Amino acid sequence: MDFSSFLTSLGTSFVIFVVLMLFFTWLSRKPGNQVVYFPSRILRGLEPWEGGRRSRSPVAWIREAFAATEADIVASAGVDAAVYLIFLSSVLGIFVLSGLLLLPVLLPIAATDHAYKSLAESNSNATFNNLDKLAMGNVHAKSSRLWAFLLANYWVSFVTFYVLWKSYKHVSDLRAATRSSQAVRPEDYAVLVRDIPADLQGQSRKEQVDSYFRALHPDTFYKSMVVTDNKQANKIWEELEGYKKKLARAEVVFAESKTTNNPEGTRPNNKTGFLGLIGEKVDTINYCNEKINELAAKLEIEQKETLKDKQQAAALVFFSSRPAAVSASQTLHAQMVDTWTVTEAPEPRQLIWKNLTKKFYERQIWQYGVYGIVFLTVVFYMIPIAAISAFTTLQNLRKYLPFLKVIVNQKAVKTILEAYLPQLALIIFLALLPALLLFLSKAEGIPSQGHVIRAASGKYFYFIVFNVFLGVTIGGTLFASLKIITKTPKKIVNLLADSLPPNATFFVTYVALQFFVGYGLELSRLVPLIIFHLKKKYLCKTEAEVKEAWAPGDFGYATRVPSNMLIMMVVFCYSVISPLIIPFGVVYFALGWLIARNQALNVYVPSYESYGRMWPHIHSRIVASLIIFQVLMFGYLGLKKFYYAPLMIPLIILSFFFAYVCNKRFYRSFSNTPLEMAYKDTKEIPNLDSIYAAYIPPCLKPEKPDDVVENYEDAKTNVSRTSSV
Amino acid sequence: MDFSSFLTSLGTSFVIFVVLMLFFTWLSRKPGNQVVYFPSRILRGLEPWEGGRRSRSPVAWIREAFAATEADIVASAGVDAAVYLIFLSSVLGIFVLSGLLLLPVLLPIAATDHAYKSLAESNSNATFNNLDKLAMGNVHAKSSRLWAFLLANYWVSFVTFYVLWKSYKHVSDLRAATRSSQAVRPEDYAVLVRDIPADLQGQSRKEQVDSYFRALHPDTFYKSMVVTDNKQANKIWEELEGYKKKLARAEVVFAESKTTNNPEGTRPNNKTGFLGLIGEKVDTINYCNEKINELAAKLEIEQKETLKDKQQAAALVFFSSRPAAVSASQTLHAQMVDTWTVTEAPEPRQLIWKNLTKKFYERQIWQYGVYGIVFLTVVFYMIPIAAISAFTTLQNLRKYLPFLKVIVNQKAVKTILEAYLPQLALIIFLALLPALLLFLSKAEGIPSQGHVIRAASGKYFYFIVFNVFLGVTIGGTLFASLKIITKTPKKIVNLLADSLPPNATFFVTYVALQFFVGYGLELSRLVPLIIFHLKKKYLCKTEAEVKEAWAPGDFGYATRVPSNMLIMMVVFCYSVISPLIIPFGVVYFALGWLIARNQALNVYVPSYESYGRMWPHIHSRIVASLIIFQVLMFGYLGLKKFYYAPLMIPLIILSFFFAYVCNKRFYRSFSNTPLEMAYKDTKEIPNLDSIYAAYIPPCLKPEKPDDVVENYEDAKTNVSRTSSV
Repeated sequence: MDFSSFLTSLGTSFVIFVVLMLFFTWLSRKPGNQVVYFPSRILRGLEPWEGGRRSRSPVAWIREAFAATEADIVASAGVDAAVYLIFLSSVLGIFVLSGLLLLPVLLPIAATDHAYKSLAESNSNATFNNLDKLAMGNVHAKSSRLWAFLLANYWVSFVTFYVLWKSYKHVSDLRAATRSSQAVRPEDYAVLVRDIPADLQGQSRKEQVDSYFRALHPDTFYKSMVVTDNKQANKIWEELEGYKKKLARAEVVFAESKTTNNPEGTRPNNKTGFLGLIGEKVDTINYCNEKINELAAKLEIEQKETLKDKQQAAALVFFSSRPAAVSASQTLHAQMVDTWTVTEAPEPRQLIWKNLTKKFYERQIWQYGVYGIVFLTVVFYMIPIAAISAFTTLQNLRKYLPFLKVIVNQKAVKTILEAYLPQLALIIFLALLPALLLFLSKAEGIPSQGHVIRAASGKYFYFIVFNVFLGVTIGGTLFASLKIITKTPKKIVNLLADSLPPNATFFVTYVALQFFVGYGLELSRLVPLIIFHLKKKYLCKTEAEVKEAWAPGDFGYATRVPSNMLIMMVVFCYSVISPLIIPFGVVYFALGWLIARNQALNVYVPSYESYGRMWPHIHSRIVASLIIFQVLMFGYLGLKKFYYAPLMIPLIILSFFFAYVCNKRFYRSFSNTPLEMAYKDTKEIPNLDSIYAAYIPPCLKPEKPDDVVENYEDAKTNVSRTSSV
Repeated sequence: MDFSSFLTSLGTSFVIFVVLMLFFTWLSRKPGNQVVYFPSRILRGLEPWEGGRRSRSPVAWIREAFAATEADIVASAGVDAAVYLIFLSSVLGIFVLSGLLLLPVLLPIAATDHAYKSLAESNSNATFNNLDKLAMGNVHAKSSRLWAFLLANYWVSFVTFYVLWKSYKHVSDLRAATRSSQAVRPEDYAVLVRDIPADLQGQSRKEQVDSYFRALHPDTFYKSMVVTDNKQANKIWEELEGYKKKLARAEVVFAESKTTNNPEGTRPNNKTGFLGLIGEKVDTINYCNEKINELAAKLEIEQKETLKDKQQAAALVFFSSRPAAVSASQTLHAQMVDTWTVTEAPEPRQLIWKNLTKKFYERQIWQYGVYGIVFLTVVFYMIPIAAISAFTTLQNLRKYLPFLKVIVNQKAVKTILEAYLPQLALIIFLALLPALLLFLSKAEGIPSQGHVIRAASGKYFYFIVFNVFLGVTIGGTLFASLKIITKTPKKIVNLLADSLPPNATFFVTYVALQFFVGYGLELSRLVPLIIFHLKKKYLCKTEAEVKEAWAPGDFGYATRVPSNMLIMMVVFCYSVISPLIIPFGVVYFALGWLIARNQALNVYVPSYESYGRMWPHIHSRIVASLIIFQVLMFGYLGLKKFYYAPLMIPLIILSFFFAYVCNKRFYRSFSNTPLEMAYKDTKEIPNLDSIYAAYIPPCLKPEKPDDVVENYEDAKTNVSRTSSV
């Protein structure tokens, strides 16, 4: 990529960004779009704009995003969003501090050397551009100028250690403060029990669980809820809900048809057969009412049967105090470790009901199976991605697909293609993965949604590191250097380090594309806006349907965090080799932070709350990126024949030590609740029945909401008594 | 080693064994030796012989050892001894079951082939003996007879899985049964708290610990005991005890001097200076009494000062119920994981007081430091041991030290030297290690004696595997094949597998030496007997001194288990290559089991009780030996050019899977106490004061024993009140 196409890329990206910003300013003022731009505020019952001013300045959102405190963020989007913002600001901090020293020192040192020039003199084939002159590649081998680049690694690393340590402490304190607050959270009073052994005394599961926990926790045991197989009940319930929606819709249609011309209205009809296309024609309202009554009765019978006969080997056990639940969740209960496995209960809305009943060894086998599949996918995805990135450089296209020459040689087409083709290929490719990874993570038998998302996000990170970063870096030079590789397979590390500098501009463009276009789309919410208006106009009839159409969703950490990580990793790895990338990284994370703050305050609604449990994962991946950067720099300094390159080794060891200390000091209080936190709340006993009711799955809730718990309880105990007689 | 020297070795070992057995039968009947042969029974207040018969048959001990139940063993020597016996019987079972199939099948298959013969015909230098003909080496390469040897590996492995699974379950149940018994054990009511953070409110440590635990466990907290720096108090106490002993001794001497000739007696004198050789001459009894009074007063002052000013950042916290202590020990207490570290308390007699106060990171750093030292020692010890074993084969001695020829060529000397020289070198070498390893393990900061012994035993096992087994196997052929190694360093695995068969006879001799001479010495207790009689005659004056002289000590698992492991590993590895080793292994473990049972019933007194916590270590090392055996067989079958050798790979994977499942299923109930066990005891609250008193170190116990706890408590609370005013 030459200098002009680099500038073209930057320029077009920037123009798109400006256009999207203008769109945002213009569209967000229209009252009809409020539900798209301020759904979170509306759901919390606030005015869309502070103070209700409609004619505010176009940059008001920036001022508001800056002015908000962390407590505001927590209140509006939860601790997880606050932790995500801490992640962005930490990386931003690292890059700002690194850039402060690296830019003024390394750029002059690189620019005043002449390695490329002397290469060009001795070898007329070699080409270089003005950007290359500002990078480490322009320094002569064995030059004592390399000392500056070596020390720059130390600076970057120590800055990272400092910022990460402060952030980890901050997140840990934030988690402790919010978890030990007075608010009653059902998951604090419950534990999840799995792998209940077969009972030999002919008790029902419910009796077995009750007697076991009553014996072990005589003072604090409250109640238990045995997990049931709800497949059938769920099916009926979903059908019932479907008819309820249909009825509401038909009633609106009927009401709307009562115009002045036709005061009676037209009663809506539908066909009962496949997709409403064939079969008998019926009056929708009557038909739905009939169906609802029929299904409601069926559901009631099925609910009783489920509670009676479909009890599984897992349960939720409720305690009368938080400390009791915390202690129980961390204490080994049974002598055989694969029975009576007790863990902290997930939030009700995070619970993956189907995974609860998976057996101990089933979970283990699935877990390793999934790891195997992911490993194979990581390895074999590398082949197509390497091919894509190698093919999509324009020179290669021309070389291998000569019939494209006519199009490609056009000046304008060429520049644009050259600027965007590889990056686009990459982005499309990456968009296909998350669904697969979420599915695989769920198959592991993890009981909570938040944990599934963390697991998927971890897998996505491996993909990104191996396929995108290493894939593009090696792949870009793969076709050119295929011969070298086959000859000396051991030198793959050297090859990698060698191919870093030529790929620097690729990644600078990639970063720029991500922040200008990506953030522009994020802030302007063009896609959700269009979808909302289309739906509202053509599909939605009832209030509930309109509300569903603008439901903002959550942040989507499973893909958001890893793609930020990729940028971070790229900037880390090129920070010393080609320090010009740092300002782009700073802009990326600064803009990202600002926009994420706006979205947290106004748009997204969390679908669960894990109190920052994703932070340790983020932390260890930042450290991993740092270590990869250090190893690559070690290789690259070695290639430059710098005798003191081994001085990188203590730095790498230090990084591992840092990771180890952080892990020891902070990690366990994220995976287990410390007793301290549970005890800070010394309030009287909360309404335990409502805590219990929070865990009843919707398909098993009786119609009358006032005696949910009694009904549920009664059904179980009556039934178990009958069955044990 | 040729066949005749092999027989000589066996023969002499057997003669020594018979002689030692005769000694045992003769000596153990003498009443004066009772305290050497039956100390455990005497200490438990039983008659030395059952039913008091003195003229019992020489094999009575065998009958008694067989007749004893596991409960007897637990009663006399504790669960640890019972678990050690389960280890011996498990390995015995594995070898018996293996041998039942391997001996009748493999020996004929090997004997009827002629690989050595054809080798001898084609190459006149090659030698082989009759033993070699019965081994796998005698089977031609690529022969289909190798199928039998391949399948033999499967048989041995499955037998091992079966026996180990049953044993693990048995040990786990035994541990559960004894731990949930009614007996009151102080460690069940206590937890160990380390890394208490610096207190900011000016409280004393005692107040800090009390308020923290009282807040978190309001219903079950009983008392706390802050760990103090007892160095000074301990020094005074030891001096005091020394003078008390000296006084007792002087009084006996004085009493004995009152003969009829000299009814007044002679008052003993001593000099006060260095070693009693110089300085003023004083009357010993008066001098000791003076010193005792002086030191007792000094001790009392020092005790108060220790309790007041030398409180450290660690404590023992006592709870009023077992389940409360169990829950507390497994629950994370503080948000910062490196503060308020709570673990199960070790037994009072296991507690290593000095290690309790080591800080969190200090422990971590020491641990890794020790691992590093051990690793280096393992690697560098290999060099001398390889040299020793290569030198000490007689041929090599003659080759490199020609001046020894005159001695070495004598027929008798030659045979004996050839039989014992390498084995002796090995045994002496191994005797030097345990002390070093115990010292290193203690330096890691482990708080309990039993854990230190497990850690040392683990390290010893690595030594044995790397240095003895691999060292001798490779080293024995090292000098001969030095050229091959330097040419193809990659082929070291092949070399290893290749050098297995020639070393088989070395190890058969080693095993025989171990069981005949080792067990003969163990049973006859010749060394302790001689030492006891010498001490009794020349040194001991008082009753206490005599008792000390025959104190039997414990089993000494730190060295005993690894040396059994070595034999087990050797027999495993040669079981298929040279099945003749199996009977020797069977005899070794059968005799070992029988003698250990006798020693457990009559001799050894446990110095601590860990309820079989060493079993998981033993188990995983047996599995490790099995895997090493499988890998070596894989290599050896490959060397034999057997095409189906890769069929060993599923077996190796299966072994890892077995280890994984066992670990998952059983391990955690060894490292943490399951709540089930703690709750089985529903007795009323025991005497908590006596539990508390059990942990007070001897140097801090006040003189008057009746109000130990009050004094101790008062001192602390008074003091802390004063200091906080």
